[in-house]
Amino acid sequence: MLVNHQSWALRSLLGLALVVALLSDAQVRAEDGYDLWLRHEPVGGAAGSELNGITVAGPDSFADAGAEAMVSVALAELRSGLAELAGGESPPAAPLSIRLSCTDADIARGGAFALDGDSTGLTLRAGEASGCLYGAFALLRLLDTGERLTKIHHAEAPAMPLRLLNHWDNPDGTVERGYAGSSIFDWWHLPDHLDRRMIDYARANASVGINGVVVNNVNASAMMLEPRYIARLARLADAWRPYGIRVYLTARFSAPRDIGGLDTADPIDPAVARWWQNKADEIYAAIPDFGGFLVKANSEGQPGPGDYGRTHAEGANMLASAIGARGTVFWRAFVYAAEDETDRASQAYREFAPLDGAFADNVIVQVKNGPIDFQPREPFHPLFGAMRHTRVALEAQITKEYLGFATHVAYLAPLWKEVLDAETGHGGTVASSIAPAGMAGVANIGTARNWSGSHFDQANWYAFGRLAWNPQLSSEEIAREWLMQTFSRDPAFVSDVSAMMLNSRELVVDYMTPLGLAHLMATGHHYGPGPWVCDLARPEWNPCYYHRADKDGIGFDRTASGTDALADYAPSVAAQWAEPETTDPRLLLWFHHVPWDWALPDGKRLWPTLVEHYDTGVAGVAEMQAMWAAQAGKVDPRRHGDVTDFLAIQAKEARWWRDASIAYWQSLNGLPLPAGSAPPEHDLADYRARDFPEAPSD
Amino acid sequence: MLVNHQSWALRSLLGLALVVALLSDAQVRAEDGYDLWLRHEPVGGAAGSELNGITVAGPDSFADAGAEAMVSVALAELRSGLAELAGGESPPAAPLSIRLSCTDADIARGGAFALDGDSTGLTLRAGEASGCLYGAFALLRLLDTGERLTKIHHAEAPAMPLRLLNHWDNPDGTVERGYAGSSIFDWWHLPDHLDRRMIDYARANASVGINGVVVNNVNASAMMLEPRYIARLARLADAWRPYGIRVYLTARFSAPRDIGGLDTADPIDPAVARWWQNKADEIYAAIPDFGGFLVKANSEGQPGPGDYGRTHAEGANMLASAIGARGTVFWRAFVYAAEDETDRASQAYREFAPLDGAFADNVIVQVKNGPIDFQPREPFHPLFGAMRHTRVALEAQITKEYLGFATHVAYLAPLWKEVLDAETGHGGTVASSIAPAGMAGVANIGTARNWSGSHFDQANWYAFGRLAWNPQLSSEEIAREWLMQTFSRDPAFVSDVSAMMLNSRELVVDYMTPLGLAHLMATGHHYGPGPWVCDLARPEWNPCYYHRADKDGIGFDRTASGTDALADYAPSVAAQWAEPETTDPRLLLWFHHVPWDWALPDGKRLWPTLVEHYDTGVAGVAEMQAMWAAQAGKVDPRRHGDVTDFLAIQAKEARWWRDASIAYWQSLNGLPLPAGSAPPEHDLADYRARDFPEAPSD
Repeated sequence: MLVNHQSWALRSLLGLALVVALLSDAQVRAEDGYDLWLRHEPVGGAAGSELNGITVAGPDSFADAGAEAMVSVALAELRSGLAELAGGESPPAAPLSIRLSCTDADIARGGAFALDGDSTGLTLRAGEASGCLYGAFALLRLLDTGERLTKIHHAEAPAMPLRLLNHWDNPDGTVERGYAGSSIFDWWHLPDHLDRRMIDYARANASVGINGVVVNNVNASAMMLEPRYIARLARLADAWRPYGIRVYLTARFSAPRDIGGLDTADPIDPAVARWWQNKADEIYAAIPDFGGFLVKANSEGQPGPGDYGRTHAEGANMLASAIGARGTVFWRAFVYAAEDETDRASQAYREFAPLDGAFADNVIVQVKNGPIDFQPREPFHPLFGAMRHTRVALEAQITKEYLGFATHVAYLAPLWKEVLDAETGHGGTVASSIAPAGMAGVANIGTARNWSGSHFDQANWYAFGRLAWNPQLSSEEIAREWLMQTFSRDPAFVSDVSAMMLNSRELVVDYMTPLGLAHLMATGHHYGPGPWVCDLARPEWNPCYYHRADKDGIGFDRTASGTDALADYAPSVAAQWAEPETTDPRLLLWFHHVPWDWALPDGKRLWPTLVEHYDTGVAGVAEMQAMWAAQAGKVDPRRHGDVTDFLAIQAKEARWWRDASIAYWQSLNGLPLPAGSAPPEHDLADYRARDFPEAPSD
Repeated sequence: MLVNHQSWALRSLLGLALVVALLSDAQVRAEDGYDLWLRHEPVGGAAGSELNGITVAGPDSFADAGAEAMVSVALAELRSGLAELAGGESPPAAPLSIRLSCTDADIARGGAFALDGDSTGLTLRAGEASGCLYGAFALLRLLDTGERLTKIHHAEAPAMPLRLLNHWDNPDGTVERGYAGSSIFDWWHLPDHLDRRMIDYARANASVGINGVVVNNVNASAMMLEPRYIARLARLADAWRPYGIRVYLTARFSAPRDIGGLDTADPIDPAVARWWQNKADEIYAAIPDFGGFLVKANSEGQPGPGDYGRTHAEGANMLASAIGARGTVFWRAFVYAAEDETDRASQAYREFAPLDGAFADNVIVQVKNGPIDFQPREPFHPLFGAMRHTRVALEAQITKEYLGFATHVAYLAPLWKEVLDAETGHGGTVASSIAPAGMAGVANIGTARNWSGSHFDQANWYAFGRLAWNPQLSSEEIAREWLMQTFSRDPAFVSDVSAMMLNSRELVVDYMTPLGLAHLMATGHHYGPGPWVCDLARPEWNPCYYHRADKDGIGFDRTASGTDALADYAPSVAAQWAEPETTDPRLLLWFHHVPWDWALPDGKRLWPTLVEHYDTGVAGVAEMQAMWAAQAGKVDPRRHGDVTDFLAIQAKEARWWRDASIAYWQSLNGLPLPAGSAPPEHDLADYRARDFPEAPSD
């Protein structure tokens, strides 16, 4: 009998093992990147054992249904995440427990939480439900990255209140500067059908603290404000609310004319103000926690208050009044107008700085990280810290319009950290200047199964959220925790690949725009090099506007002898960049025009140094390829192969950037290459003739 | 010791059970439709047992590397498919075997195969490698649908040589008439990166016998013929070759001018012929088994030989000569020109019938199923059977441009069967008339995770392939086998849901265009009703052109007293439709204009019968909803919920079609509704005012 029983057990075991093998196989095949950093691979050993059979207990009563829904999400994420982390280990003799307390008066509201482990398990305390949500995801992250449940003592609070993704998604499903398929928002079937992807998207955002989403492009269609779109948006808002995410809309400033039947959109016109008031009321009736509006006004052909001789403040305040205390108006400072001869790097500063103090309390001015446009490297934007009486948010671009699209590995945390950590000269860093407002990231998300078009671009979504939550985190910490959750906890893997990530953005700078060069990409789609482009109607549409190279020298003089854009910065900051001799070489050609034989602080000349940067970039990509090849077997074959393919493209394109740039500079300066540096593979004419009408997302 | 061992086994079992539960959960979550009909759920019991431990043995030598690669795919599909079907059953005492013989002289070449089970397993014999490939998929299908391996005796041979998908995909990633996301072809990263989806796509096609793919839109960009696209296409061809799939390109007829530097595309010009000859040679150098070209010429603004006063035959033969014996030119008969006053239903016939015998041997004229354009119901196209000296292929539209996009459940096999089974009057059926050529289906495939945008639209992809392989299959057989493989083998489920599928297309006819009406969709995007549209420049752009309704009557007189399009048919067929009294009521208004009180064969009057059809359609969708609701628990919750949501949209849109159509007809005929029929929910003005600029794929 006993033998029979055992024999049955063993036979069943055999059958189960087979099923497990099959299911495992299915799971290996499913490793397509969809799960992002929420994979929760079993941790194994004693750490896994103590997660087995664990009980997770939530509070008994809730402030309201919203809090209850949010805590339910926290509990569900914990339960499924812990079960996945526990894997097949044996449970401990005395099962542990996790206790959630989501109305702890000792913890601040707004998302803060404290995790405290002890021999019986762990307590998660928060000031309100959102803190339990973020605490739950943080706990899973800590366990995913090797912490032992019972040893955890960890508290966090968000550094800034508003942490938003901006989607440049159009209602027709296209995505401006999108390299990851089409829009994830299936407006056509909303509100009747909610794609499951909308929930997984919310989970991913909540797990890194993102708490708002602007769903449509800054180059907006007024159609999104029509009733049928509001109904569609309401369904998204309902789905995302338990994940702590508020929905926002880009508002086309001319909407009262476009869809409202008025003959003006003048913000001073009472009928216009009334139209927006009614529109806001209509939206809030459908979405009580609607986040508010984002506006791109009087820039690149978009309508705005300037069309009626009104200021940005007059335009923004009219919308802010319509929304009232219910929400926020994000007003973009990215303005450059075809009529304006001012240095493009100065236009936003000169238009917005004088308006400091003129904006309503619920207006936030949204400023790009640098004064031009999401280049591989720019100095920080001079508006940060300069508007003492205005809330200013930082706009970062997660999608890599200027850094190799989705193909190139370019980990952006170091780029953002460079800006966040910069001293503004007005007392404090950029990070501290935006603390009362927040950060907005232009999403790199599309219908690609892995969300971002490439596996490594998931890291930029992740890093954006983590830095908006806590700009003190280092780029390396973020890379390491992302790698452990997304790929593997193998220490050698994490060490090698995080080093690759940390270096990757600088390599893009090296092979595209070293030494402070900028905006040399081919026009329109921004794919590949186009430094020779100089025949477009407006000066600032041309790469030659930005490099100003000729036979004698290169660089944009932004000092007093040039456009004096340098004067936009606080004196202590401007002083660092005033003289070419003392300017950080990484920004030299951003601020100065110098001869080709200019001596850099290390004594080397400009031209060979420039070539050296290009060569460093190309060689660095080859090193990335070799390093990644050595990781075979440490990650699943499919994702390993995908990355291998993309690195090969990156290597080819890095070489193209280097060769085309050098060929062009040589056509101007006639200088020979330094010894040991290979000549460009093709003639300049070949590079100039290349044409890519199919380049994505022009 | 024994006890300890058992205890260990039981504990491990517990652990494994947990893992299984987790993985099962993961698999349930992954039930997103990506696996199509290739899910291979375990069959259980004795049937599963005999698949356990089975050996699959292939031939030892191969005709060439291509055959070896194809047989390798067959073996791999069998091994993984059988392991999945076997599930966790115990293996039999003596494991069975499957033996492949892929060069059996008794079996025809071209894909035929024979399966013969016996007590030791099964033998798969084929005349060449492709037969082993199709036989392997057929064997898995038979096992999936309940056959016992050892009892199988089954032989098949394809009914027609060419079974193609036509993708209306543009190189920018958009898809004309695509309702399933954007294009699956990632041209941007090809040839350097091959998306895994390209392999899964090839598997799905091969499993239903599809052996060719036209990758780009019939409204083509000449860019696709440029060298960098040929390199990209070559990578796809290499990936698909082991699955028996040849690649084809739509060729823009003006390419010699667009990209060739010539100032003409006149097919009689020797330089033009030489350009195409060189282009074909360039393609064949990269893709030795390139399938050939598809051309849409002189239709809807596309360039063609008519631009130079040449015939379709002159244009097609010039391309055919460039390709030679290496491939095929598919020349579309879908022509209608803005200058031509001929009844649109007659234009293709009158232009092509006189060219019979003038086409080169490697030209196939590709004819839509009906004489207008993929309507819910049309009579068969009069060209079928009429071109006795020309190979003619049938073009079907799998994507549902006129049948509710991806949202409505409309199983299209009955529509295609209606045409395939029709007697042409020239001796034989439509199916027999295309047997020397084949079928082309306009794909409904996009980046949607479930490929087709809706779960039930996968059935149309499947049914297209199955009917092109064997037009004798019944719609019901195909529905049943698709359901068993895709959803569940539960007999009650299969019975209920196949009945729903079989009725679904007729319901669309009922609520959109009953009694032979056609093309009443809103213009451009074809979303929703627009029978009132009558103000567009060209007559045949207007729905009123097709219904010709006024206060006295409705319908298009295509008899001798009208446009005489009826004369395009063979006399025996035309006779059936010559008199309104004896015309099948399902086509009455296609061929005849009759008064509103026309008496139908059953004695009922036209107007109440028309309303009855609308009501039947609406009621039928409600029945589908109830039937589907009752299937909860029999299919995974996610797909069940997706279908439930879409059926609710379909119910709403069916009601809209009914109400708007009735309101419009009443505005013309002033007739009251029959007793018991509900008045339209809104005024006609409401329906006319509805506007959907965001409707997909206009």
